[in-house]
Amino acid sequence: MLIGSAMCRVKRNDTIMLYDRQNNKKHILNLRLAKGKFSTDKGTIDLDSLVGIQYGSVVKSHLGHEYLLLQVTLYDFIMKKLNRLTQIVYPKDAAYILLKLDVKPGDTVLESGIGSGAMTAVFARYVGESGMVVSYEKRDEFIKNALSNLRKIGLDERVTIKQRDIIEGFDERNVDALFLDVREPWLYLDKAYEALKRGGMIGVVVPTTNQVSETLLAFERLSFIDTEVGELLYRRYKPVADRLRPEDRMSAHTAYMIFARKV
Amino acid sequence: MLIGSAMCRVKRNDTIMLYDRQNNKKHILNLRLAKGKFSTDKGTIDLDSLVGIQYGSVVKSHLGHEYLLLQVTLYDFIMKKLNRLTQIVYPKDAAYILLKLDVKPGDTVLESGIGSGAMTAVFARYVGESGMVVSYEKRDEFIKNALSNLRKIGLDERVTIKQRDIIEGFDERNVDALFLDVREPWLYLDKAYEALKRGGMIGVVVPTTNQVSETLLAFERLSFIDTEVGELLYRRYKPVADRLRPEDRMSAHTAYMIFARKV
Amino acid sequence: MLIGSAMCRVKRNDTIMLYDRQNNKKHILNLRLAKGKFSTDKGTIDLDSLVGIQYGSVVKSHLGHEYLLLQVTLYDFIMKKLNRLTQIVYPKDAAYILLKLDVKPGDTVLESGIGSGAMTAVFARYVGESGMVVSYEKRDEFIKNALSNLRKIGLDERVTIKQRDIIEGFDERNVDALFLDVREPWLYLDKAYEALKRGGMIGVVVPTTNQVSETLLAFERLSFIDTEVGELLYRRYKPVADRLRPEDRMSAHTAYMIFARKV
Amino acid sequence: MLIGSAMCRVKRNDTIMLYDRQNNKKHILNLRLAKGKFSTDKGTIDLDSLVGIQYGSVVKSHLGHEYLLLQVTLYDFIMKKLNRLTQIVYPKDAAYILLKLDVKPGDTVLESGIGSGAMTAVFARYVGESGMVVSYEKRDEFIKNALSNLRKIGLDERVTIKQRDIIEGFDERNVDALFLDVREPWLYLDKAYEALKRGGMIGVVVPTTNQVSETLLAFERLSFIDTEVGELLYRRYKPVADRLRPEDRMSAHTAYMIFARKV
Repeated sequence: MLIGSAMCRVKRNDTIMLYDRQNNKKHILNLRLAKGKFSTDKGTIDLDSLVGIQYGSVVKSHLGHEYLLLQVTLYDFIMKKLNRLTQIVYPKDAAYILLKLDVKPGDTVLESGIGSGAMTAVFARYVGESGMVVSYEKRDEFIKNALSNLRKIGLDERVTIKQRDIIEGFDERNVDALFLDVREPWLYLDKAYEALKRGGMIGVVVPTTNQVSETLLAFERLSFIDTEVGELLYRRYKPVADRLRPEDRMSAHTAYMIFARKV
Repeated sequence: MLIGSAMCRVKRNDTIMLYDRQNNKKHILNLRLAKGKFSTDKGTIDLDSLVGIQYGSVVKSHLGHEYLLLQVTLYDFIMKKLNRLTQIVYPKDAAYILLKLDVKPGDTVLESGIGSGAMTAVFARYVGESGMVVSYEKRDEFIKNALSNLRKIGLDERVTIKQRDIIEGFDERNVDALFLDVREPWLYLDKAYEALKRGGMIGVVVPTTNQVSETLLAFERLSFIDTEVGELLYRRYKPVADRLRPEDRMSAHTAYMIFARKV
Repeated sequence: MLIGSAMCRVKRNDTIMLYDRQNNKKHILNLRLAKGKFSTDKGTIDLDSLVGIQYGSVVKSHLGHEYLLLQVTLYDFIMKKLNRLTQIVYPKDAAYILLKLDVKPGDTVLESGIGSGAMTAVFARYVGESGMVVSYEKRDEFIKNALSNLRKIGLDERVTIKQRDIIEGFDERNVDALFLDVREPWLYLDKAYEALKRGGMIGVVVPTTNQVSETLLAFERLSFIDTEVGELLYRRYKPVADRLRPEDRMSAHTAYMIFARKV
Repeated sequence: MLIGSAMCRVKRNDTIMLYDRQNNKKHILNLRLAKGKFSTDKGTIDLDSLVGIQYGSVVKSHLGHEYLLLQVTLYDFIMKKLNRLTQIVYPKDAAYILLKLDVKPGDTVLESGIGSGAMTAVFARYVGESGMVVSYEKRDEFIKNALSNLRKIGLDERVTIKQRDIIEGFDERNVDALFLDVREPWLYLDKAYEALKRGGMIGVVVPTTNQVSETLLAFERLSFIDTEVGELLYRRYKPVADRLRPEDRMSAHTAYMIFARKV
């Protein structure tokens, strides 16, 4: 039984991995940015020739050196290739936010601001082709950068960007979920409330405890239930069977997350 | 502009929330299990009459008391309503696993065992209508319980269950991602390798460090890259603006997660 | 070579452990409170008869059942026998505070309030016989309870208690270290500054982030260096060799600690 | 009332801090190693002239620039000045071990190996002048380095070093507490048992989970109670009142600690 999405083929703007099995080396590159050629001392690959090839195939350099052609996972893209102009929402937080906000294929999600597009990409992937992400952002350079990131991972078509200050409110009503990653989220909670459907979840991220307190104060004035504040810590281990131990250092803080549900 | 999935209507097996705004009370119930009536001192609601009504609507008891009719989020369902015969994969871990395994709408995911269906539900939701989850499980009572849980949250139709010992291997080939939540995962990694597509991710959860070590040993004998071991800690805060502080106690351990990628 | 403090003998107010090896059972009791008799179905021990006996000895009930006579460690006393009228400073924090404040045998330490005497006991133990702890506390019932606790562990004689509001300042000058465990520490930092020697360390514990912020503001107005804010998390493991894993739940928060040095 | 250990004066081998208030700068130096002169663009101080001066005094360079003469805290010494040939026991762990092992002024403590002397220094400080630390260590270079470190902080006279393999056992009997920081602690637990007094505590640190498991196995064969395994995580915050948040990164792992009590 041959199943799975094996039919997935390389597109012109994709970010791909060329895995050199012989030397256990990974090369991650974006086809548009890499401009035509991938070259090492093992020879050259014409990148245009990769478009249309099935992921999982073996490709060869002009000197005959073999590479596995692999998709970049969204996780690796965010951690290793996403161009950052801002602090990003890290995958550990983004995945939790996705689930807490109950976002699913077909949903409409509002967010502001777009940052570097990491959270946007996660939303865009999981609302699927039938869903939609609308992202409000004031700053031109953030929009350009986030769009470029979304394009490289093939998710730009699911995202509508509005260059607007959300103090004027959102155009949309009855949206499934709403996410705020802005400096003063407490200024916009009433606008967020208006845009959400009944039962819709809101998520907010802030880096400091002072902002958490201000945001909680603002929540108290609106009809939300199930307010939750939390943070996630990810601790990696050195993957050595007979000397298993955590890595020496870890990220100690990315963001405080605040969730609530409109009623 | 009225958008969003507001058209979502109550189905016969749904798990719903009736929110009593006046008393700020939440009642979560499954329509099939609740058998016909929802009764409190505020009056009775005929549950059959709710089928087909739009989520977000206001419904009334026979005494005229108002309730908001809300969907249960998948997060709340797993934490509060899922019937547990086993230790479950908690949402914080499930969301991270989803993203690390790069599971997306349209994908085919294999898993074993089914446990109580928590991880299964998360996969089933995010592969969407065009995707598929195949779950291998030996034990009859786990299958029945997991299926019942999946039905209550409306995700059973995306899941194929095979009552089989995976020591015989998986039927499927070329699958996008594979997840193992079994006592001795190291016995099945070669079978998992066979079933995965090139570039496909595998995820394993185990509760003890000894199992992590055994699993890492088994990984060394197969062509996987990017082996990662980690654990997630979620720390909640009391949501009080002027006395912000973590809750007194927290979950200290759910599972060690191990990830790798087939090349 | 026979060394060590084997000469340590039971005193009238001591808190002791009677360890029943045959049944692997620990009985912790205070000689004064236990009032004369220790009785189980294995027989009775006249507690007065234990005074003067060397710790580590075997003692017998009137039916001949044997017990090991052991000292209670300060750690166990604080965790299991200290009578609590307040939230206490937990040993993990108390030990760190001791070292950060550079308290050592011979030192003079000021503190306020006395709480239930847990931190006081740790200070009193480690300033030794030549050192001194002065504790400021307003409330009568706290003083009585803390003194009773200190007496049970034999450390009351090193502690001077002053029933006073520290808004009036401390009597002492040039003290080695100072510790504040009060609701509004920021009100007393100038008084603390006056009492400390040059180079002396101050430590403050508070439960909320709002209090940390207020305290930091107050520190900025005084000549302190090396301000540090931190928290300690202790994670226990189930001590099972072949199924090693963290305990399911842990304490998620005891206190934020703030340290600084007077210059 | 002038109290406190203000009488503490500089000794020939001390490690001191010269605090430049005008420029808010700290200079930490060891008098013996600094060899005679402390020189900056603010002038020179003859270090020999500092011996005998009281800590807390103001001293001047030959150009009249003022410095506060301060003791180095043991915490700062370990973190900033201790010369490391090995992984050290960090203060957060050392303080907890001190308290868990119930070490107090007057006690005799055995340890092996000496490492770089960090744990040794903490024990030596808190057993006080009437106590004693005996440290077993095989390697010459570790002994020399640890002794040099202990001398710089003035604690060498309380430590007896024995250059010996502890597989031959300890000379001492009836000691109050025993600490093992060696690669294979499970080989020596029976020797440790012999040396401890009844009721005495043992502490072990190891970096990997495999070592924890091996050590727990060895404990099972001996008469110890209250076996505890744990680890401490210290999380620092940026000390900024209106933007309070944890530091970005933290130490994720220093050591697993194992404790037990001989009965």
